[in-house]
Amino acid sequence: MREQRPESIEKLKELLENIDFAMLTTMSGGKLRSRPMSTQKLEFDGDLWFFTSDQTHKVEEIEADNRVNVAYADPDDNTYVSVFGHAEMVKDRAKIEELWNPIYKAWFPDGLDDPTLCLLKVKVEEAEYWDSSNSRIVQLVGFIKALATGQQADGGDHGHINL
Amino acid sequence: MREQRPESIEKLKELLENIDFAMLTTMSGGKLRSRPMSTQKLEFDGDLWFFTSDQTHKVEEIEADNRVNVAYADPDDNTYVSVFGHAEMVKDRAKIEELWNPIYKAWFPDGLDDPTLCLLKVKVEEAEYWDSSNSRIVQLVGFIKALATGQQADGGDHGHINL
Repeated sequence: MREQRPESIEKLKELLENIDFAMLTTMSGGKLRSRPMSTQKLEFDGDLWFFTSDQTHKVEEIEADNRVNVAYADPDDNTYVSVFGHAEMVKDRAKIEELWNPIYKAWFPDGLDDPTLCLLKVKVEEAEYWDSSNSRIVQLVGFIKALATGQQADGGDHGHINL
Repeated sequence: MREQRPESIEKLKELLENIDFAMLTTMSGGKLRSRPMSTQKLEFDGDLWFFTSDQTHKVEEIEADNRVNVAYADPDDNTYVSVFGHAEMVKDRAKIEELWNPIYKAWFPDGLDDPTLCLLKVKVEEAEYWDSSNSRIVQLVGFIKALATGQQADGGDHGHINL
């Protein structure tokens, strides 16, 4: 069923393309913490990318435990997406330059000259979504079979994507 | 510093009152999963309440590990709140009737006659927020001292509330 992976990626890309901000949840000393992150606009290929500073708490948190959830919410459209994956910090200059956009100066006024600037990459392993095609957003929509494993995802009360 | 607890509760109440939907993140078999939840409108006293069905995955997840994060995002207002706490399922009939509102029929068509209807209560222990008073939403705003313990919260790059 591996050949269906492109469809899952396409579905997730479609769900995320109109949601600029996500809440990234990490494990922090036994607690779950989240914070807003701006998702990079690029061809989604199974990885999510975010700009961050290497001086933030989340860097230490991810070094200690790199399991993360990225939650996308668009209440106007009744679209919600939960993404699970493993995160890593990427300080590759070429990638930073490739993804940089001047709009990020709102958060990083020194832009590419900021020595703390780095990327957080989330390798997406599972995604679940709730969308506006049904008013009962708690129990909803399509159901996509698990693709990475070839097994069906459990549940089925809403969409579930395994990459 | 215990006497400042009411101020923290007031601040959190003010932050949450215009955000109807939250993403609730739980631990699920070693993975972090989130799903949209509608917050109950009531006098916030340090606990968050949500209606749910006792037939959902999150009930098992919370029984296995009751640490949760509740993330609130209002991109239009640039307001983001991360709440950490412990969750419990509450099947108290009087409390269910007290909090019930016909608008929840969108998710529970049988309303109070639904035998699976129950409440999820999150006892808020820590909250962090980012708000629109500063355009650099990743590194921002006021800083509230830890109140439950009387100690300062770590960090200080954004608001942090301990209840």
